[in-house]
Amino acid sequence: MADYVLNTWYPIAWSRDISYELAKRRIVGKDVVLYRSSTGQVAAHLDVCPHRMAPLSMGRLKGDSIECGYHGMTFDCSGACIRIPGQRIVGSPAVETYPTHENMGLVWIWMGDPAKADTSLVYDLPQYHDPAWSSAEGDALEIGCHYLNLCDNLCDPAHVSFVHLSTLGTPAGEDIPVQMKQTDDGLLTWRWINDSPAIPLFQKFGNFKTNVDRWHYYHYTAPSIAVIDFGSAPTGTGAPEGNRDDCIQIYACHFMTPVDENTTIDHWLHVKNFKADEETNKKLSAEFRLAFSEDKTILEAIHQNEQRSVNPAPVRLAIDASPIRMRKMVDEWIKSERSPATAAAVQPEPSHA
Amino acid sequence: MADYVLNTWYPIAWSRDISYELAKRRIVGKDVVLYRSSTGQVAAHLDVCPHRMAPLSMGRLKGDSIECGYHGMTFDCSGACIRIPGQRIVGSPAVETYPTHENMGLVWIWMGDPAKADTSLVYDLPQYHDPAWSSAEGDALEIGCHYLNLCDNLCDPAHVSFVHLSTLGTPAGEDIPVQMKQTDDGLLTWRWINDSPAIPLFQKFGNFKTNVDRWHYYHYTAPSIAVIDFGSAPTGTGAPEGNRDDCIQIYACHFMTPVDENTTIDHWLHVKNFKADEETNKKLSAEFRLAFSEDKTILEAIHQNEQRSVNPAPVRLAIDASPIRMRKMVDEWIKSERSPATAAAVQPEPSHA
Amino acid sequence: MADYVLNTWYPIAWSRDISYELAKRRIVGKDVVLYRSSTGQVAAHLDVCPHRMAPLSMGRLKGDSIECGYHGMTFDCSGACIRIPGQRIVGSPAVETYPTHENMGLVWIWMGDPAKADTSLVYDLPQYHDPAWSSAEGDALEIGCHYLNLCDNLCDPAHVSFVHLSTLGTPAGEDIPVQMKQTDDGLLTWRWINDSPAIPLFQKFGNFKTNVDRWHYYHYTAPSIAVIDFGSAPTGTGAPEGNRDDCIQIYACHFMTPVDENTTIDHWLHVKNFKADEETNKKLSAEFRLAFSEDKTILEAIHQNEQRSVNPAPVRLAIDASPIRMRKMVDEWIKSERSPATAAAVQPEPSHA
Repeated sequence: MADYVLNTWYPIAWSRDISYELAKRRIVGKDVVLYRSSTGQVAAHLDVCPHRMAPLSMGRLKGDSIECGYHGMTFDCSGACIRIPGQRIVGSPAVETYPTHENMGLVWIWMGDPAKADTSLVYDLPQYHDPAWSSAEGDALEIGCHYLNLCDNLCDPAHVSFVHLSTLGTPAGEDIPVQMKQTDDGLLTWRWINDSPAIPLFQKFGNFKTNVDRWHYYHYTAPSIAVIDFGSAPTGTGAPEGNRDDCIQIYACHFMTPVDENTTIDHWLHVKNFKADEETNKKLSAEFRLAFSEDKTILEAIHQNEQRSVNPAPVRLAIDASPIRMRKMVDEWIKSERSPATAAAVQPEPSHA
Repeated sequence: MADYVLNTWYPIAWSRDISYELAKRRIVGKDVVLYRSSTGQVAAHLDVCPHRMAPLSMGRLKGDSIECGYHGMTFDCSGACIRIPGQRIVGSPAVETYPTHENMGLVWIWMGDPAKADTSLVYDLPQYHDPAWSSAEGDALEIGCHYLNLCDNLCDPAHVSFVHLSTLGTPAGEDIPVQMKQTDDGLLTWRWINDSPAIPLFQKFGNFKTNVDRWHYYHYTAPSIAVIDFGSAPTGTGAPEGNRDDCIQIYACHFMTPVDENTTIDHWLHVKNFKADEETNKKLSAEFRLAFSEDKTILEAIHQNEQRSVNPAPVRLAIDASPIRMRKMVDEWIKSERSPATAAAVQPEPSHA
Repeated sequence: MADYVLNTWYPIAWSRDISYELAKRRIVGKDVVLYRSSTGQVAAHLDVCPHRMAPLSMGRLKGDSIECGYHGMTFDCSGACIRIPGQRIVGSPAVETYPTHENMGLVWIWMGDPAKADTSLVYDLPQYHDPAWSSAEGDALEIGCHYLNLCDNLCDPAHVSFVHLSTLGTPAGEDIPVQMKQTDDGLLTWRWINDSPAIPLFQKFGNFKTNVDRWHYYHYTAPSIAVIDFGSAPTGTGAPEGNRDDCIQIYACHFMTPVDENTTIDHWLHVKNFKADEETNKKLSAEFRLAFSEDKTILEAIHQNEQRSVNPAPVRLAIDASPIRMRKMVDEWIKSERSPATAAAVQPEPSHA
């Protein structure tokens, strides 16, 4: 059976896409109907009418309630049934609802125990709100793989030197080992590639006349967030020692929705230490779109190989230390949710990148 | 395993579509090849050559027999093998055949014990043959759901007020309870909606200046027939008391083929108490086509929800009394067929709407 | 589980399609990546990187080695890992490789024990190399069925009289029994149809003024090769007695790749006892293409019937003697491979048609 961490805030939709109309999404194997009520709050219900299993998303909004499109059973924002046409309400029929919260342009949803849905746990990147930085939303990229395979990829700076040669990587990094350490709420995986040409992206958007020192810090926040801090500064200006006055820096944020066993949606956006006009943001997004489509191609092929073949046990490399630790963290979290006595120790603290 | 009532007449094709050529259909999970022989009778065989499992529908008619297109084994109308090229016939190889009968523009087929295939049991609607009435055939609408889900829908007048607002329903009926009673061969479910505006269909095709009294009688004949008697008369003319001199009345007939667990074909036609020219029939059919496509959309979404999710036990409402009874009837019929000792009591009488 | 003969040479690709670039194929349920190395030899590896299961066919050739496109693990022609970027090679990580050999315009692959991969066992038709004959390659025809169903078809001269009336057969042969005998490495199934009009193909490409004597010799070489020797000579010139001076003769060769349980690729070509110009070869291939598409249609329909229905036990006819023996041979071969003690007796000798 599919198994997911439930007591966590998952991204489920761009805020820009949720208005006063019914929108359908899928997460942890459940269909969810979303709408923005008159209070501005996003309501989220299981997209299944408890009467005949019709999708509520095929119904209508009546005030802040949903009327099922099949027989008119009506549910308010709390999920309570407030009308059954032709009869009085017997018992307390209701539809499952889920807490939501908005931050960083996204609607976040809590699929677990609602009593634990503390909005202070919703992920935040301070730079997103900093006027010295600027950000731009990308796509909701659907990838035909399990979300943990995408997490593997996002705890893994090494693949960049092979997969993204036209955008995010150069061969210079091929043989430079990666480092990792556990953090309060996840993992940090990184490497520096010093005194070498800028990556294609920074050749276009930086203005480097010399070799650069370049960093890739992969911040993973369990279970489904990865924020890649990468940047460059001219070699000799002291970036590796902490002096980054003259640097270009981008946070590439991946907020992943685990749709079901075979599907992940990667809501990606970028936050950078310079003011970008709309044109520049479009060009930057186009570069990321290309890079992430390269990941998608590989991840979907791997998913196919995993599904249809009996493969030998995988060879494990040094670069796998972080993905292996990542999967162990998620496994333990799921186990702790299923046996609540031991849960306290594993639950993460409020997260900040 | 899939389970169906077998000792019954199911509609399988429009008579208009069956001529002296091989036609393939599917019913109760079996492929069937149909053709009209030189006697005018419709022959129906399992569409599987007993030699190498080639579909007989890919073969050729030779006289009134089918020659398999792979090696020429030939089967007559009774299913007996009358030729094996290159050798004499050994044993009594045969292909399964099924009794058929035609009525109301449809070919009906008996998939159960041929000894019980009494053609007097084939469904009939007397008005179909009455010169004061007129009828028109609709489509063979394929719906991606189990046929019992469509039967639910057709034992259920209440959905009309929510699903078919542009054609067959108005909000006036939303809160009017439905009534039901068991009949010799099925169920009758109905309600009256009095002193309110005509439904959109009758606004187009009736000529009402005043409010109307409107009835919806849903005649279900187990296991797979539903005939909806609906009509209207000006309020005050006594329609609810039985005086329908000035009424418009239509029988919307649904003759369902249970194709397999995931597919149903609804052969629908309409019979009405006025002479309609071709143009009017076309317009009427267009209205029904729209309405039934609305049902199709909902039923396919429900089928998806039932397939891919573990849903909580459904809430049952007053309007479900008829669908629940319907499913119980079908279940008992299937059980009685499997344990023949108890079969007599449940088998239906010849049916007339 | 799927089960295949493994210690045999299977055709996997046209030689013309394998160059110094990565090509993906599938056989016996495994994905394989092929490329022609600088020595001209065809290398064949399991198309799964042992690190993260990425398809190696999505990587790059570096010299005669494959670099995985995900993290740069590199494997030479022998499958040995020669590079892991960022670390030294620990243990002996490797990817499975398969022996190959080329003959008759095809790449042949050995999916079983490499120690037994004797290239003298690769199938050969001497006439293919004879300057008095000429040959032309056809297609790699994908058929949605198990390869043994195609083998049934190719141990079965009788179907030609029913399936291929516009190309390879005439009704004259319908009732003529077929004969068979076991050979060193397979089966021979045949019949003569004497003193009747030429088949449509030979009416176009022969020049017959009279009735002909016609032969169909189906040479099956276990497990997945069939070579059909068919031809005609004017009746009265003594062809049945062995005098074929004035004949037209074609070997239609079917080299089958068992892709997986649901898919077969038929690499077909034709070899004939006359010099054909390009135009004639094109026309001939068009005729075969039509005929084999007729087989494809039937075989895919049978595959569907076998998959989705519980069918009665098949009726067996005289013409099935050869297909039944064929399947028994393959079954025994598979069993002998699984219990090696008894293998020697069943393994075929080098094969020549």
